[in-house]
Amino acid sequence: MITLETIQEAHDRIRPFIHRTAVLTNQTINERSGAELFFKCENFQKIGAFKARGGLNAVLQVAQNKEGSAITTHSSGNHAQAVAFAARQVGMPAYIVMPRTAPQVKKDAVLGYGAEVIECKPTLDAREAGVREVMAKTGAVLVHPFDDDRVIAGQATAAKELIEDFGSDQPFDVILAPVGGGGLLSGTALATHYLSPSTRVIAGEPEGAADAILSFKSGHVEKAPYINTIADGLMTSLSERTLAIIRAHVTDILTVSDPEIIAAMRLVWERMKIIIEPSCAVPLAVVLKHKDQFAEQKIGIILTGGNVDLGKLPF
Amino acid sequence: MITLETIQEAHDRIRPFIHRTAVLTNQTINERSGAELFFKCENFQKIGAFKARGGLNAVLQVAQNKEGSAITTHSSGNHAQAVAFAARQVGMPAYIVMPRTAPQVKKDAVLGYGAEVIECKPTLDAREAGVREVMAKTGAVLVHPFDDDRVIAGQATAAKELIEDFGSDQPFDVILAPVGGGGLLSGTALATHYLSPSTRVIAGEPEGAADAILSFKSGHVEKAPYINTIADGLMTSLSERTLAIIRAHVTDILTVSDPEIIAAMRLVWERMKIIIEPSCAVPLAVVLKHKDQFAEQKIGIILTGGNVDLGKLPF
Repeated sequence: MITLETIQEAHDRIRPFIHRTAVLTNQTINERSGAELFFKCENFQKIGAFKARGGLNAVLQVAQNKEGSAITTHSSGNHAQAVAFAARQVGMPAYIVMPRTAPQVKKDAVLGYGAEVIECKPTLDAREAGVREVMAKTGAVLVHPFDDDRVIAGQATAAKELIEDFGSDQPFDVILAPVGGGGLLSGTALATHYLSPSTRVIAGEPEGAADAILSFKSGHVEKAPYINTIADGLMTSLSERTLAIIRAHVTDILTVSDPEIIAAMRLVWERMKIIIEPSCAVPLAVVLKHKDQFAEQKIGIILTGGNVDLGKLPF
Repeated sequence: MITLETIQEAHDRIRPFIHRTAVLTNQTINERSGAELFFKCENFQKIGAFKARGGLNAVLQVAQNKEGSAITTHSSGNHAQAVAFAARQVGMPAYIVMPRTAPQVKKDAVLGYGAEVIECKPTLDAREAGVREVMAKTGAVLVHPFDDDRVIAGQATAAKELIEDFGSDQPFDVILAPVGGGGLLSGTALATHYLSPSTRVIAGEPEGAADAILSFKSGHVEKAPYINTIADGLMTSLSERTLAIIRAHVTDILTVSDPEIIAAMRLVWERMKIIIEPSCAVPLAVVLKHKDQFAEQKIGIILTGGNVDLGKLPF
């Protein structure tokens, strides 16, 4: 069970390695949404995404507890970089299983942190088989992208900082995060539950990867009816672990279309002059779509990351 | 003459209307340049560029001194928005003469601040004639983009803040700014001269608009041999006023090519996750081109603005 103390310990553990990221506001976006928005800029985090937090919290504990001599994971996205970055901090080898279809720029980023990339077929089975093989060969310990209490406790520290910095005197009405596998959302919900219990936590999910909204309603881990979205960080389904936390502490999950995601992303680029990736724009898209629901409220938004391929922009 | 007191008064005057913008650092870019860089983020400034400072300092004085009942200028760029924004703060009408070839998004931004756009042929003669006509008709006062002490004193406040925030205990070795008409560079050089006299001021200029380097050497206002650069904010020539200040207080002007500008711009986008316009990338391009000259130095860079057309990116 992830307690407040677990999250506080995670924060103390990872603090020397992460940025306490800025919280930005923007007058135009406030006017357009009719709400007061506070953006927690994890796009400025190490590796360009909040995933550095969870990866570090897990890897630092593996190293401290001497649970293994190496780290492994499978990911084509920010978690791959997070684990590679974290392993480098503790001087452990990292073996990252990546689909061979992953963009070279992402493989290069992982290699840049000194990790080894093991290519596999672009299927979940092949990725999991690749990880099992690495574990058998090297004694590496798996750090799962979200189905891991240590990862969730690490991700929780983003909301913890946001609440400490801007939500203590006058609590947020709502904190929003996107949902993919649910690691960030679980951590955000737990941190908010402990540190700002009057604040609702609401998730944003792409229509083109709408599994969490189904699972949230049914109470079982469901698959999305179809996967087709620009928000490539949010395609994963929940796990039993993240679903349980989300059912306990999240108020609602709202979906948005790809055009709505792209419009929100563009608004942030043009008005805030910061770079966010499509997955990262989902919560703002939710606020802009459901203005009535959020009008005149004080809202915290976790901006999750800024790793985009500048050669493949949607505008 | 622009004294330290002039700059201090300008700062007091505009402070309620501007952001004290963040100063960011980036480990990767430090490693790649071999220097210690401090980026003053005027892309986060009101209207998305430092020009808000000079425009405000001039317009607020026009209003306070009751010099006229309206404001005018000609500009296709950030100064147009700056004057429109400033005029709105004091409730004065603003007439902005813009070439009819200016992008609609820039006209819309000016209109969005409540100013009137007067379209003209895309030549300097037509622009100046347009302004004269507005002045005759409306009694509007011209706020020139750079050939104006009040504008220069306003632009000087960016370097003043940078020095106050990060250059007081351990002075910068160098502060870099780009040069177009020379308003920002003059202000930066004067603020640095008064507040951090041991710091050199160096300008970056595009090879495709290389007038300032010629004027700096000859002592006369020269034209560029040719104009062809992506740095659309830096195509203007100096005035006698800005040349005199630059000759007195600037150490050197260094040129960079468009591919070097684009590479520096891309590096900032990818690593700092912030949006800067091409003109804004020129000083970093200078540092990356002349690594030996800047190695192991503490360097301040004015990031001038972030107004780019996302539909026309150079990558």
